[in-house]
Amino acid sequence: MEKSASTHSATGRDNLTEAVVRQLVECGVSDTSGLRPVTPMPAPHDIGRIVSLCRHIVFPQFFGAAALEGNSLLYHTGMAVEELHHLLLAQIAVVMPDADVPAIAADFINYLPELRRVLLTDAEATYLGDPAAVSVDEVIFCYPGIRATLNHRIAHRLLKLGVPLVPRMIGELAHRDTGIDIHPGASIGESFVIDHGTGVVVGATAIIGSNVKLYQGVTLGARSFDRDADNNPVKGVPRHPIVGDNVVIYSNTTVLGRITIGSGAVIGGNLWITEDVAPGEKLVQARPDNILRFKI
Amino acid sequence: MEKSASTHSATGRDNLTEAVVRQLVECGVSDTSGLRPVTPMPAPHDIGRIVSLCRHIVFPQFFGAAALEGNSLLYHTGMAVEELHHLLLAQIAVVMPDADVPAIAADFINYLPELRRVLLTDAEATYLGDPAAVSVDEVIFCYPGIRATLNHRIAHRLLKLGVPLVPRMIGELAHRDTGIDIHPGASIGESFVIDHGTGVVVGATAIIGSNVKLYQGVTLGARSFDRDADNNPVKGVPRHPIVGDNVVIYSNTTVLGRITIGSGAVIGGNLWITEDVAPGEKLVQARPDNILRFKI
Amino acid sequence: MEKSASTHSATGRDNLTEAVVRQLVECGVSDTSGLRPVTPMPAPHDIGRIVSLCRHIVFPQFFGAAALEGNSLLYHTGMAVEELHHLLLAQIAVVMPDADVPAIAADFINYLPELRRVLLTDAEATYLGDPAAVSVDEVIFCYPGIRATLNHRIAHRLLKLGVPLVPRMIGELAHRDTGIDIHPGASIGESFVIDHGTGVVVGATAIIGSNVKLYQGVTLGARSFDRDADNNPVKGVPRHPIVGDNVVIYSNTTVLGRITIGSGAVIGGNLWITEDVAPGEKLVQARPDNILRFKI
Amino acid sequence: MEKSASTHSATGRDNLTEAVVRQLVECGVSDTSGLRPVTPMPAPHDIGRIVSLCRHIVFPQFFGAAALEGNSLLYHTGMAVEELHHLLLAQIAVVMPDADVPAIAADFINYLPELRRVLLTDAEATYLGDPAAVSVDEVIFCYPGIRATLNHRIAHRLLKLGVPLVPRMIGELAHRDTGIDIHPGASIGESFVIDHGTGVVVGATAIIGSNVKLYQGVTLGARSFDRDADNNPVKGVPRHPIVGDNVVIYSNTTVLGRITIGSGAVIGGNLWITEDVAPGEKLVQARPDNILRFKI
Amino acid sequence: MEKSASTHSATGRDNLTEAVVRQLVECGVSDTSGLRPVTPMPAPHDIGRIVSLCRHIVFPQFFGAAALEGNSLLYHTGMAVEELHHLLLAQIAVVMPDADVPAIAADFINYLPELRRVLLTDAEATYLGDPAAVSVDEVIFCYPGIRATLNHRIAHRLLKLGVPLVPRMIGELAHRDTGIDIHPGASIGESFVIDHGTGVVVGATAIIGSNVKLYQGVTLGARSFDRDADNNPVKGVPRHPIVGDNVVIYSNTTVLGRITIGSGAVIGGNLWITEDVAPGEKLVQARPDNILRFKI
Amino acid sequence: MEKSASTHSATGRDNLTEAVVRQLVECGVSDTSGLRPVTPMPAPHDIGRIVSLCRHIVFPQFFGAAALEGNSLLYHTGMAVEELHHLLLAQIAVVMPDADVPAIAADFINYLPELRRVLLTDAEATYLGDPAAVSVDEVIFCYPGIRATLNHRIAHRLLKLGVPLVPRMIGELAHRDTGIDIHPGASIGESFVIDHGTGVVVGATAIIGSNVKLYQGVTLGARSFDRDADNNPVKGVPRHPIVGDNVVIYSNTTVLGRITIGSGAVIGGNLWITEDVAPGEKLVQARPDNILRFKI
Repeated sequence: MEKSASTHSATGRDNLTEAVVRQLVECGVSDTSGLRPVTPMPAPHDIGRIVSLCRHIVFPQFFGAAALEGNSLLYHTGMAVEELHHLLLAQIAVVMPDADVPAIAADFINYLPELRRVLLTDAEATYLGDPAAVSVDEVIFCYPGIRATLNHRIAHRLLKLGVPLVPRMIGELAHRDTGIDIHPGASIGESFVIDHGTGVVVGATAIIGSNVKLYQGVTLGARSFDRDADNNPVKGVPRHPIVGDNVVIYSNTTVLGRITIGSGAVIGGNLWITEDVAPGEKLVQARPDNILRFKI
Repeated sequence: MEKSASTHSATGRDNLTEAVVRQLVECGVSDTSGLRPVTPMPAPHDIGRIVSLCRHIVFPQFFGAAALEGNSLLYHTGMAVEELHHLLLAQIAVVMPDADVPAIAADFINYLPELRRVLLTDAEATYLGDPAAVSVDEVIFCYPGIRATLNHRIAHRLLKLGVPLVPRMIGELAHRDTGIDIHPGASIGESFVIDHGTGVVVGATAIIGSNVKLYQGVTLGARSFDRDADNNPVKGVPRHPIVGDNVVIYSNTTVLGRITIGSGAVIGGNLWITEDVAPGEKLVQARPDNILRFKI
Repeated sequence: MEKSASTHSATGRDNLTEAVVRQLVECGVSDTSGLRPVTPMPAPHDIGRIVSLCRHIVFPQFFGAAALEGNSLLYHTGMAVEELHHLLLAQIAVVMPDADVPAIAADFINYLPELRRVLLTDAEATYLGDPAAVSVDEVIFCYPGIRATLNHRIAHRLLKLGVPLVPRMIGELAHRDTGIDIHPGASIGESFVIDHGTGVVVGATAIIGSNVKLYQGVTLGARSFDRDADNNPVKGVPRHPIVGDNVVIYSNTTVLGRITIGSGAVIGGNLWITEDVAPGEKLVQARPDNILRFKI
Repeated sequence: MEKSASTHSATGRDNLTEAVVRQLVECGVSDTSGLRPVTPMPAPHDIGRIVSLCRHIVFPQFFGAAALEGNSLLYHTGMAVEELHHLLLAQIAVVMPDADVPAIAADFINYLPELRRVLLTDAEATYLGDPAAVSVDEVIFCYPGIRATLNHRIAHRLLKLGVPLVPRMIGELAHRDTGIDIHPGASIGESFVIDHGTGVVVGATAIIGSNVKLYQGVTLGARSFDRDADNNPVKGVPRHPIVGDNVVIYSNTTVLGRITIGSGAVIGGNLWITEDVAPGEKLVQARPDNILRFKI
Repeated sequence: MEKSASTHSATGRDNLTEAVVRQLVECGVSDTSGLRPVTPMPAPHDIGRIVSLCRHIVFPQFFGAAALEGNSLLYHTGMAVEELHHLLLAQIAVVMPDADVPAIAADFINYLPELRRVLLTDAEATYLGDPAAVSVDEVIFCYPGIRATLNHRIAHRLLKLGVPLVPRMIGELAHRDTGIDIHPGASIGESFVIDHGTGVVVGATAIIGSNVKLYQGVTLGARSFDRDADNNPVKGVPRHPIVGDNVVIYSNTTVLGRITIGSGAVIGGNLWITEDVAPGEKLVQARPDNILRFKI
Repeated sequence: MEKSASTHSATGRDNLTEAVVRQLVECGVSDTSGLRPVTPMPAPHDIGRIVSLCRHIVFPQFFGAAALEGNSLLYHTGMAVEELHHLLLAQIAVVMPDADVPAIAADFINYLPELRRVLLTDAEATYLGDPAAVSVDEVIFCYPGIRATLNHRIAHRLLKLGVPLVPRMIGELAHRDTGIDIHPGASIGESFVIDHGTGVVVGATAIIGSNVKLYQGVTLGARSFDRDADNNPVKGVPRHPIVGDNVVIYSNTTVLGRITIGSGAVIGGNLWITEDVAPGEKLVQARPDNILRFKI
């Protein structure tokens, strides 16, 4: 093949680059839709560190075996809470320049003991619900469901404190690592269990009771939504399911819309649920066809 | 338990290692099936950098707030395009030693403004389709669907330019981060939306129109395929769905084979679709049984 | 907004932190459920390195092109086996302080040639089953299914040798990267194929024959389980499916309980299977409703 | 040897640590001399980056060969100046919270072209003065004297702008890397050459003319100084030598006090000079004894 | 130039490498002088961390401004002492497998408050002796003399506790960073000042009083030594100077042998001192020749 | 203080940066003296790695204790020689694009056994000459003199093979770490000892016999040199000392010019030597004045 002369020389290369760069920059100046200056973004590394510090504080096992006795636990916890406080002050200030940042950070710091209490109910419930789990410690160390729930409970608290963007980033960190996508807005009760978890989606206005168990691939989503005069989606309308206490939903089932799943209901896998389910009701998919309609 | 004497001494350990190493190396020399010298592989780190540079160039928000005005945007864009060009020249040369590498790299560089234009339609459509989205910027920063679509559009362009292996690696980078697995061969129109995305699979010969929305767990796959005389799969046969404009497919639905989903169709979740769907048709799963056939 | 005076001064900040830290530490001393000293944990970084070394040894392509001839392959393989041996001795000693660690590590090292043999059957089967695959090398480099299967075969061997915790960590490494969650206890035959893979779950007591292919989102799970007098789940009861040879299961299907899927069965996607499937049987979902019961 | 029981148990270890920590902390609270809160310190990493950016801007060779033509040089220089400006604003603000930081940073940025001009005279003079030098580029890349002079000229400018601490840190960076210790206060003319350089010391009030050459181990120091009523050294008194133009001082010579070395003087090595040297004077050490007074 | 055929092909390259490797390995097996298995070496990274922790504990300024009040100082100091203790136990065990490691580590930990007290006298003396020093804090942060003295005092204590190799490594860390080479065996009094420091050497049996000041390039060395029957140097013989209190030695002076420098002596620079100096004596170099014997 | 308005706004800042950048870039285009495109530079990181690999190969102790027996030594040495060979080929090709790179690299690889032999004589001599040295291993691990000599012997060999720039960079790596500055051109015999070493300088045309010992601060330098018609220094003229066998030179002595130091000579410290020294001659500095001519 004959080589293209125009791009071979250093000069040709420079011209090529220059033309494209000019195009990109001019577009950047004239087209304001996607290129307008954004408000400063939180630092992803620091957001990850905030989550990591919370995990260490809540589950001191992560500090290492040496850290769980006497002064050692004091020093480690003290250092971690202090660094967490410092990072929260800085990152909240980035996204809320006009807010009472110290008050917000203080509220979150004060929440830590409660955060631990609730997460221990999640870990305990996960252990009790899985014959393959060897110990609560194994659950805390290895189970992606616990990781996603930890991130969610942090993100949810920050969202309730009015902090923008940061909760979403914390949720996406868990999503990337676990395949579990819980919107920070979702309200979730104690003793929450997500088993395996890949593909789980929980929407922004979902409300989940206590002692609920979701398997992999379960969606608690929205069906449709209204748009305003500018064709923008109307925000804040309740549009995701309300799930009662003691509900189990098996893998890959889709539950859509502001419907209610009554307490104690058990929903089998691979279902499409768009209407209320009564308390204690048990649903499974219709039997499959075994007449082969085509070669698979 | 009595310790095994033979593996305790340093000599024993050395003998053990030596025997296994010899076995592995001899096998490597005689068995050519999986161990034959491969053509040089692209450097994964550089492939990741290529994607990262494209993201910065296309969405200058990623350069940081300081970068979006005047000369600053010029310097950042210029540096990024230059580094991208340099990396493309090097990596394409690795996998296409006999090709007109400068022409291929130049074609890709020239594609950048168009790449930005199309991705902005994707981001805009994602924003308009999600009441939980706060701004287009949030979509660009946080939504895994945008990340996967960005990787795909880069990979698809390189594939059309004849570049081997690199497109697949770019697709797998997105797959690993987002759980969204789009084959670089798939052809996808503007204003494409993937919501949540975990578990989405789009096959190599799929053709997708404009303004299509796929939810998590949707598969656009193949049903079966022919084999040649050597029992190898026959390559290049169209075997994945054609999806029209303005189609919505809800979570976990599987669409298989070279069928056509007509424009404006809405397909509910958890379905198994192996036959054409008419334009504007709306499908949902049959109602579940509520007679419990067994304890779940 | 008026700023909260109590948290503004350095003293206020210090008092806040101190109070929360005290609460967290005291709770740590009194509440023994989640905070009790744990046995030392394996080092996650070293577990990742163990997997990485196995991958390099089994697939010498990963050493780079220079490493596949003569002495070079010898040096690379020798170094890698030696480092692997060293890391295994150290990490097994952490979790099994009273075991015959050298014998266990030696058993695993001796397993390496067989590990390579079996994984090559997996790679070959994956290549033969995917018209989009360009070569066995591409499969080995890029396909998440191979990565998850490699991790599983390592983890399964270690589990059979009685090693605790480490197998689970190896499985979760693959889960995080690929969305494929195979419990180390599962027994899996040769020529195993997982296509795309996101959302696949295989339970601890599952038994899978040879030449089986699972698509994304397939679950081989448990239905329910008994609890002992203390309300703990009874461990070790077979509760996951037995899958025969030459079975294909399409995307998102859920197979639950100690049922048997007969050899040669083909199970379509999005099904809920809780009863035995006969050898050679072919199942697909019932046709969807096309009467729209509500706006989606 | 019998082990000391008291430090063996975990409890013993904890007690030990606790007692020492208490002592250290209490001391920290009561003794204010060395432990009092300091003003915030500049970030060492950022100070290093400031120097590195100056080096790249002044000697574009450091950008790499690709960077020296047309737009490429523009992009690289633009990015580097911008990052430098940003870092200066931040670091000066740390040490001068009440100053007109933008004006100070702007002054330094405006100094960059002059900084380059002067450093090129240093590099040229070094090249002309060393038969072992292959090119000016080799001098710029490899010679520690150039590195130390670059750091000095940056530090001296910042000191003259009133910036505290930062100049000293920049000087010490060069000291650590090169063994050349020039106080930022020293005033140094053009075409300055330090050959080899290890052990060179130039004091805070030294004044050096143009075209001066110092060899390794040369000290331009102070002899003694006065103390104030509180026994603190009196600051700011001229106490280091004034060196004229075209002076050469050979290795390890010590020149002390506010004396004058006249232009064109040549001072041999290993001398102790505490009195004025006339212009053009040439001094060497007295001949050694060759009567061995003792065994060496 | 004609290329050498024998080294061009991959085979030629492999043969070359193999031959040299064989030579190197065989030599390694037969020649035991330099290649014999060594006792395990301390980990350089951990030795560096030990020094760094001591610096943070002794000078809490290094923890950052936030760390100097109340609980914050407690947490930081506690964590640092704990990590230091842990590292000491591990590294001492490497080099003293048969010693009472806990007792040795405990002794060093107990020494920390005294270490701080002495180093503050050094910092204070340095500040008082340098008109260019702005504050004691600047001295602690920036002065290489303080860094070298800190390392020395740590190393000296460990040497007195019988720890091998580690003290030497700690001394060499300072040597590399500062050009100051103090043997851990040297005994040094309070209020010790090294100004600039590059090239200072203090030998293993040197004894230095209080309030001594050494300038750059000063050597306190040995003159000669005896050998034993095997021609090895006789170890442990006092062979370096004894320096009294309040002595000043100017730059580049060499003081050799077991001589005594009396208290209050002042020794000018560039001298060769091999005989006792009386208390209070003041010595300077003989005047230089100003008759040029040759062109310099 | 009133802030300077012109530099406060983002626009002002952008204008400032732009003006300086323009000046710097234009100067770069017009002034060719210091800014002309350079030949590609070797990668400093790779040069450091080359030295590090040589150190590991020559002193296998650096591979760690496990590496010194049987196959382990073979694997480590093989890997290291192979990587060294690869890096040499690449870096030599950068600086000698037209040379027979494989032949040059092969020559260096073949030199490795001899390099080890000679360096062991240096280490042995260092050990025998220092009563403070505990073992040859300690010398190899800790002594900066050995490190500088290792770098020099590598650099000298490459220089003799005609490789430009790389030898100088290798020498400067040692200079930076040890304060010992040996020009790669210097020819140095076996059993070479540098004690402490900071400030040692050995010039490009120096010739040093066997069993020579230099203390810290010793210079073997040039006195003056001729210039050609263009005022450039005349290259390649012998201008540094010739030092015979068994010579000792004490600290800080300066030896200048193409003079000869006869075998067996002992030269005391702090001397200025510019004339031949006879074999066996012993020189020391004249006694100091003890009449204080001024206050020091």
